[in-house]
Amino acid sequence: MTTIAEPQEAQIVRVGLAERAYDIVIGHGLIAEAGQRIDAAFPGTRVAIVTDKNVAAKHLAALEASLGAAGIDYASVVMEPGERTKSFEEFQQVVDAVLAARLERGDLVIAFGGGVIGDLAGFAAAVVRRGMRFVQVPTSLLAQVDSSVGGKTGINSSHGKNLVGAFHQPSLVLSDTDVLDTLSEREFRAGYAEVAKYGLIDRPQFFAWLEQNWAEVFAGGPARTEAIAESCRAKAEVVARDELETGDRALLNLGHTFGHALEAATGYDSARLVHGEGVAIGMALAHRFSARMNLASPDDASRVEAHLKAVGLPYRLDHIAGDLPGAEGLMNYIAQDKKVSRGALTFILTRGVGQAFVARDVPAAEVRSFLAEQLER
Amino acid sequence: MTTIAEPQEAQIVRVGLAERAYDIVIGHGLIAEAGQRIDAAFPGTRVAIVTDKNVAAKHLAALEASLGAAGIDYASVVMEPGERTKSFEEFQQVVDAVLAARLERGDLVIAFGGGVIGDLAGFAAAVVRRGMRFVQVPTSLLAQVDSSVGGKTGINSSHGKNLVGAFHQPSLVLSDTDVLDTLSEREFRAGYAEVAKYGLIDRPQFFAWLEQNWAEVFAGGPARTEAIAESCRAKAEVVARDELETGDRALLNLGHTFGHALEAATGYDSARLVHGEGVAIGMALAHRFSARMNLASPDDASRVEAHLKAVGLPYRLDHIAGDLPGAEGLMNYIAQDKKVSRGALTFILTRGVGQAFVARDVPAAEVRSFLAEQLER
Repeated sequence: MTTIAEPQEAQIVRVGLAERAYDIVIGHGLIAEAGQRIDAAFPGTRVAIVTDKNVAAKHLAALEASLGAAGIDYASVVMEPGERTKSFEEFQQVVDAVLAARLERGDLVIAFGGGVIGDLAGFAAAVVRRGMRFVQVPTSLLAQVDSSVGGKTGINSSHGKNLVGAFHQPSLVLSDTDVLDTLSEREFRAGYAEVAKYGLIDRPQFFAWLEQNWAEVFAGGPARTEAIAESCRAKAEVVARDELETGDRALLNLGHTFGHALEAATGYDSARLVHGEGVAIGMALAHRFSARMNLASPDDASRVEAHLKAVGLPYRLDHIAGDLPGAEGLMNYIAQDKKVSRGALTFILTRGVGQAFVARDVPAAEVRSFLAEQLER
Repeated sequence: MTTIAEPQEAQIVRVGLAERAYDIVIGHGLIAEAGQRIDAAFPGTRVAIVTDKNVAAKHLAALEASLGAAGIDYASVVMEPGERTKSFEEFQQVVDAVLAARLERGDLVIAFGGGVIGDLAGFAAAVVRRGMRFVQVPTSLLAQVDSSVGGKTGINSSHGKNLVGAFHQPSLVLSDTDVLDTLSEREFRAGYAEVAKYGLIDRPQFFAWLEQNWAEVFAGGPARTEAIAESCRAKAEVVARDELETGDRALLNLGHTFGHALEAATGYDSARLVHGEGVAIGMALAHRFSARMNLASPDDASRVEAHLKAVGLPYRLDHIAGDLPGAEGLMNYIAQDKKVSRGALTFILTRGVGQAFVARDVPAAEVRSFLAEQLER
């Protein structure tokens, strides 16, 4: 964490997955270089760009100009923004649009947007002609540090989020750090929750570095590039150990069991809570609960809360505007979460900052009384 | 081909795909044994059976009884029969039904039917929770020798057949040869075209054995089991060499480029032509065209036609009832077939019986004049 790259230099993180290995390039001005980089990596390819209206309004012309300058044929598919786009109907639209562009199996789908577009376009690429190449050009901090690494793609069903999808690794990820300047402060902060998460899982030095340097990360420049690169390295290491999420990869869900329950309890109303905010509160709760179970010191929980507070993220249940259901209601949302294995409650708990672990058979009664206490705080 | 198994003994063909390897069990009474075999291989599993109305009417009670006797929880999903079931809408129905049954990632989807059900249920298994286990219990000869081996799953789009799907290997295949007795003679014959295909690709001795023993294969008993097992071995070898169809696997398309064009040209009207019949005519045409290109002897083409004639399969264009488009019209259907790589026509041609090869850059003009000649025969 002591070496900071020169401002102009892109960092490259290699995701080591044998024949599915790929590079994540992180740096300035990468949208303008996209055509050149894609042409070099995949000569002769044709492209379908999948994006949403918000991203298209701000950045699509730049990406198209870059592809055009490199002589790459492309078609653009512009979807509605928002989580509702991860539906069967919109998925079919994307699939049909890629087929209508007459792309072949070796051609490329570019997922150009945040996590929703990455999940949707990646899943389409996974199944059109039983698997096309795809390139991620993530435009949110959350997508740059989380959803663009690891190959999880998918859509939602009426039975729950992300229940239909595929593991499909991208062939290349281009994370342009400049586009993050066009995000709202709230969006950037929500993505930052996932950055902090990597420190809390198993990188205590990274967490300490973030405590010192978070303002530089928010401001942009080399600290931002470094924080994104370190997050990608952290996630890539876990993914390389457990590509198909049969074990260790569950660590990445730190804060997510509580977080998903809170998202569900607030009806996925982004005015009240967005994913990263749910994760921030969830991480704080996971540390507090670990302290209550005598696994970690309460000082660690306080330290996590202090950092979330410093950057402006919520970390307590009463930071959520409006009413929440009671402890029993929240428990029902937790039980519906898909990370319940054959009936047992599985949580990511911690022994301290950077010492998270997968805890199976966590007693539901303990979680319920903990939540009841937190609701009265 | 000289050792014929005892009537009661099931044959097992291992599909060697490293960590995705699986067994194909072929023999009598396997539906009655399904519960026991599945419980032994996947203890504690729960099951969603996906089938169609025709198969359900004849065989579902037997499969459910077998699972019930082994203490396996199951839910059954019964779809309309026919190719139209391979649509986005019906796919979503199957996915939703599997999710509604609250199956977890380690649980099983059973594809219980012919090729349509195998493709549809296999694709659902590939994407529900990003990949569930599935077991094929194929009930048509075509599915037992072709679609249940190799892991291709998928559905159709308005842009063409099988354009959306996944490579997803089953965990087990149970091919009950008794259910084939409930097929119509026409259905059985159509499946037999794919059996003969394996001989024509690279097993001249198997083709010669079929010329001698085809009547026994049609009658049932050990010759039928042997023919199915040899077909599975043949396909499994090709698939093990080229799981994702980047090279050799294309050999399995012998007869299919012409065959698909004929299916499209007859509007997928099964009264006029079913898939296996299209393949039979396609194989005869591929041999005749290879002779015309001086690649093979015309005697080989005549030998293939003689065998197809003996078993009652069509082998000439004028065996199709009703009008066909002209040579130009057929060429358009060929060009639409997905096995066109970057504009060049790729065909499976042959140097003789059992000596098929992938021919790239076949001149379209030669194919067109050949078809014009055949239409005037």
